[in-house]
Amino acid sequence: MKVVIAGGVAAGMSAAARLRRLNENAEIIVFERDQYVSFANCGLPYHIGGDIPDRSSLLVVTPKRLRERLNLDVRTCHEVVRIDRDRQVVEVHDRQQDRRFEESYDKLILAQGAAPIRPPLPGIDHPKIFGLRNIPDMDAIKQVVDDGATSGIVIGAGYIGVEVAEAFRHRNLDTTLVELADEILPPLDHEMDRSLIYHMQHHGVNMLLGRRAESFRDVNGMVEVQLDNGDCLQADLVVMAVGVRPENALAKEAGLDVGERRGLQIDAHMRTSDPDIYAAGDMVEVDDTVTHERTIIALAGPANRQGRIAADHICGRESAYSSSQGTSVVKVFEMTGGGTGANEKTLQRTGIPFKKIYVHHNGHASYYPGTHPMHLKLLFAPADGRILGAQVVGVDGVDKRIDVLATALRLGASVYDLEHLELAYAPPYGSAKDPVNMAGFVASNDLRGDIRHWYAEAYPERTTIGRFLDVRTLPEFKQWHIEDAVHIPLIELRDRLDELDREVPQFVYCKSGFRAYLASRILMQHGFEDVRNLSGGISTFCLFHRICECCPHCPDEDSPMITYAEDRGVEATRASGKPVST
Amino acid sequence: MKVVIAGGVAAGMSAAARLRRLNENAEIIVFERDQYVSFANCGLPYHIGGDIPDRSSLLVVTPKRLRERLNLDVRTCHEVVRIDRDRQVVEVHDRQQDRRFEESYDKLILAQGAAPIRPPLPGIDHPKIFGLRNIPDMDAIKQVVDDGATSGIVIGAGYIGVEVAEAFRHRNLDTTLVELADEILPPLDHEMDRSLIYHMQHHGVNMLLGRRAESFRDVNGMVEVQLDNGDCLQADLVVMAVGVRPENALAKEAGLDVGERRGLQIDAHMRTSDPDIYAAGDMVEVDDTVTHERTIIALAGPANRQGRIAADHICGRESAYSSSQGTSVVKVFEMTGGGTGANEKTLQRTGIPFKKIYVHHNGHASYYPGTHPMHLKLLFAPADGRILGAQVVGVDGVDKRIDVLATALRLGASVYDLEHLELAYAPPYGSAKDPVNMAGFVASNDLRGDIRHWYAEAYPERTTIGRFLDVRTLPEFKQWHIEDAVHIPLIELRDRLDELDREVPQFVYCKSGFRAYLASRILMQHGFEDVRNLSGGISTFCLFHRICECCPHCPDEDSPMITYAEDRGVEATRASGKPVST
Repeated sequence: MKVVIAGGVAAGMSAAARLRRLNENAEIIVFERDQYVSFANCGLPYHIGGDIPDRSSLLVVTPKRLRERLNLDVRTCHEVVRIDRDRQVVEVHDRQQDRRFEESYDKLILAQGAAPIRPPLPGIDHPKIFGLRNIPDMDAIKQVVDDGATSGIVIGAGYIGVEVAEAFRHRNLDTTLVELADEILPPLDHEMDRSLIYHMQHHGVNMLLGRRAESFRDVNGMVEVQLDNGDCLQADLVVMAVGVRPENALAKEAGLDVGERRGLQIDAHMRTSDPDIYAAGDMVEVDDTVTHERTIIALAGPANRQGRIAADHICGRESAYSSSQGTSVVKVFEMTGGGTGANEKTLQRTGIPFKKIYVHHNGHASYYPGTHPMHLKLLFAPADGRILGAQVVGVDGVDKRIDVLATALRLGASVYDLEHLELAYAPPYGSAKDPVNMAGFVASNDLRGDIRHWYAEAYPERTTIGRFLDVRTLPEFKQWHIEDAVHIPLIELRDRLDELDREVPQFVYCKSGFRAYLASRILMQHGFEDVRNLSGGISTFCLFHRICECCPHCPDEDSPMITYAEDRGVEATRASGKPVST
Repeated sequence: MKVVIAGGVAAGMSAAARLRRLNENAEIIVFERDQYVSFANCGLPYHIGGDIPDRSSLLVVTPKRLRERLNLDVRTCHEVVRIDRDRQVVEVHDRQQDRRFEESYDKLILAQGAAPIRPPLPGIDHPKIFGLRNIPDMDAIKQVVDDGATSGIVIGAGYIGVEVAEAFRHRNLDTTLVELADEILPPLDHEMDRSLIYHMQHHGVNMLLGRRAESFRDVNGMVEVQLDNGDCLQADLVVMAVGVRPENALAKEAGLDVGERRGLQIDAHMRTSDPDIYAAGDMVEVDDTVTHERTIIALAGPANRQGRIAADHICGRESAYSSSQGTSVVKVFEMTGGGTGANEKTLQRTGIPFKKIYVHHNGHASYYPGTHPMHLKLLFAPADGRILGAQVVGVDGVDKRIDVLATALRLGASVYDLEHLELAYAPPYGSAKDPVNMAGFVASNDLRGDIRHWYAEAYPERTTIGRFLDVRTLPEFKQWHIEDAVHIPLIELRDRLDELDREVPQFVYCKSGFRAYLASRILMQHGFEDVRNLSGGISTFCLFHRICECCPHCPDEDSPMITYAEDRGVEATRASGKPVST
């Protein structure tokens, strides 16, 4: 059997290695267009920023080593440029020798990934405008920085854009992040990226959200970016990180089925519409675990597993790829954010019924040093409590909670299951009731009718039917409160029930939702007919609404999670045109 | 309704709080024998060691606050000393006033926990011999240390003993840990605690394993401990941490059913053999998730959830506690160890069929700084791959993998499910193939027959039927190898197959198991009939067998995971009687 693989990074190389392990006799040829195979593409921003000082550590494996260990024929600088499906041959362009030749195949695996989108804007060909997909891209960007660049602009605030912006700040560049949307990190819902935005500002990144880059021009070797509002920015270099697009040209030309999202259509065994051609990785469309829509998830984990499954099936095994849930995580300076499954935007768009809750518990026991509250948002099915998605943003222990929730979601768990998860507890690692347990408790309480929630986005339009009841302490209330709120501290509530109108909906709130939960239970059991608890309390409210005075939600004075007070400081400094040094 | 609760820490206070949330009108009285309720008992060693400087942070809540917030009647220094089930009253001893009175109940919840075992050895009443269960114990121990103690002995190497030994070293005490067994941390299997033992020695803890303390005597105000081998140790204080025993005296005297393990017998709703009396926490026997035996799990998480379930049932809800899987974790200086589900010892004892594999992957991408290999052991059912248990020991990301595996086990997942888990990956947090995925791949390969494993403990008796094949590089082979091993580096194997005897079982090995896996696949596909791969490679082998020369298994020169070389250094220093300063 002769297998040809087009693309030698995550999916392609996983497929090649698995093929060899399963079939010692197969002839396996990998054509990689670029100079390197199987490099650590997720590490590229960190070498630019200096976290990974050793460039060679990113070059996981060489063709020589792949030949020795796995008897693979890996040819770099070779691009598959055409597929002749009838004759089962590919045409290959040897980019070093600039010659073309044909190679036959019994099975072909396409693993060409996705290319950074380079919008056709005026001046986009400026030599200091880069994408960041591979080692040469990284080398080029790093060279400009090493050569003394003092300013950089990143366009696009997805994971790569955010990582590059952080890298630029680590290199002390005057850094601006331009993003078309008014939010960053699309997998997160709008409110969940707020603390990360503040945190980036705190670290001196000039965040220009809701702004479109319209053109570029050269000014004495620097790049000038003109924005849609007429503003112009200049910097020594620009990195475009506005998303990726499946490398589907070859496949389309060969007549393989391509989906609405431009990704290759594949079956559960990663087989394209031609049964002798497989595809895997960032270029394919897969089922979304939650919405069951076809989706493209450009992430390394799924790519690796898909390559493996393609190899399995070629070797006669029935391995199948069920779906992708889009579990992801990103480091943002000292903070971490990420999620799994569907976000609220997606559930709304697809019309899938859902409920949601927010909790804000510490990464580990509050009395053990080094912990901070995390924002945890849980989305679940109203009918049976099945987990639909989760997002977590915070400082410590964020990736752990994402992974626990990703595991629960993948295994079809409900919020009731989360109540009973028996997670590892010692003070440095968690709490006797883990944030995941707490999310399960709150969601289950909601579904069981023990509590009814109101949500920050209902304010102010949909809260006019009732009264606000603030059950925090007097100093908290004085610092900031929702306008017209009645103030009765929790500990006085039982004695002051007569001050409240039982007939009017009570919109109860506190800082994080727990005291308001206790208050709601008291009211509900004393004949109040419509009692609602602000999910996540003011800690969530302030992610939706700019609270101008002080920071009643500020979890911890020395937390790296930004406070409004600090944020205003950054804005003031930013107005003068120079970022705060970190 | 009037509910009396005996015991106001984890289970008791969870029950009380939940009762109030569900029933605003119930009369709820909590009697706590000691001075404090709901204190952070898991934090006690960390205040002694100085990690938690603020003592008051351990006092989570006061009776006053519980009265104000939850309208609870909490009486400290009040001990329930007798239950009259016929009259539904308890007799209470007010320890401050030294008076007794009766209190009636509709429902009674027993949550008295478990007491440190204090073996009746000669001299055990020495005033400098302490247990560590509560705030006064902690205060007393800390006082002795604050007063200038320079040496301490801990007897018992369970979680508390190990934490106290670390605390003593943080306070610069000459520290000895005496343990009857030749291993520490009973939830871990013998081989899995090896690196933790070395790590403790590296941090200057004198580890006396397989030693029994036989008597104590006073020598000028110090405690002298006589061991079973005749050795005597002296120290300024001794902490006994040889386990806990359910506080069942009250329940037994009242005729409630007590199980073989001395814990109270309860049904799924935490109800004892008397339907008006519930019990929760460290004093009850629960079902083991994996073995289905009755067991006692003295951990905070289960205690909290059980208290909550007792309250639910009293309020007419059908909440049920299914089982405990014993998920646990402990910090040991810079390392972390823990597990979930059954360990190998338990599976062997109960005769449950199992298979196992070991993997040693990094906590996150190796090219991103700050990671180290972790030892991960996975136990699973041969028939269907169901996860039976897992243990993880390492430096970074250990608690995360325990929690993911605990979640998977609780949800009934198999090793095939672990292959497909979509976990959060970015270089600072994990790898595209997470250690949990890798464990799933290796275990699934085993069950599918793609690989057959041999195990370190088979050596040397059960490996005589075959030959050892070392597929590492020549420098690795020269540093150390299994005696009589044939050496063929992986990259030469395909060309040198004729040097091997196809009829003889091949016991293949490498450092961690991956190269040997590739080698095994080559051999299996070239007609070798009996090929076995050392599970976990030498990295696991050296946890079973003392490798005297160098440290071929040493994962990383600057890893806090101890190497044999460093270990010998500690032993040499220790012989001189003084621990290495940290």
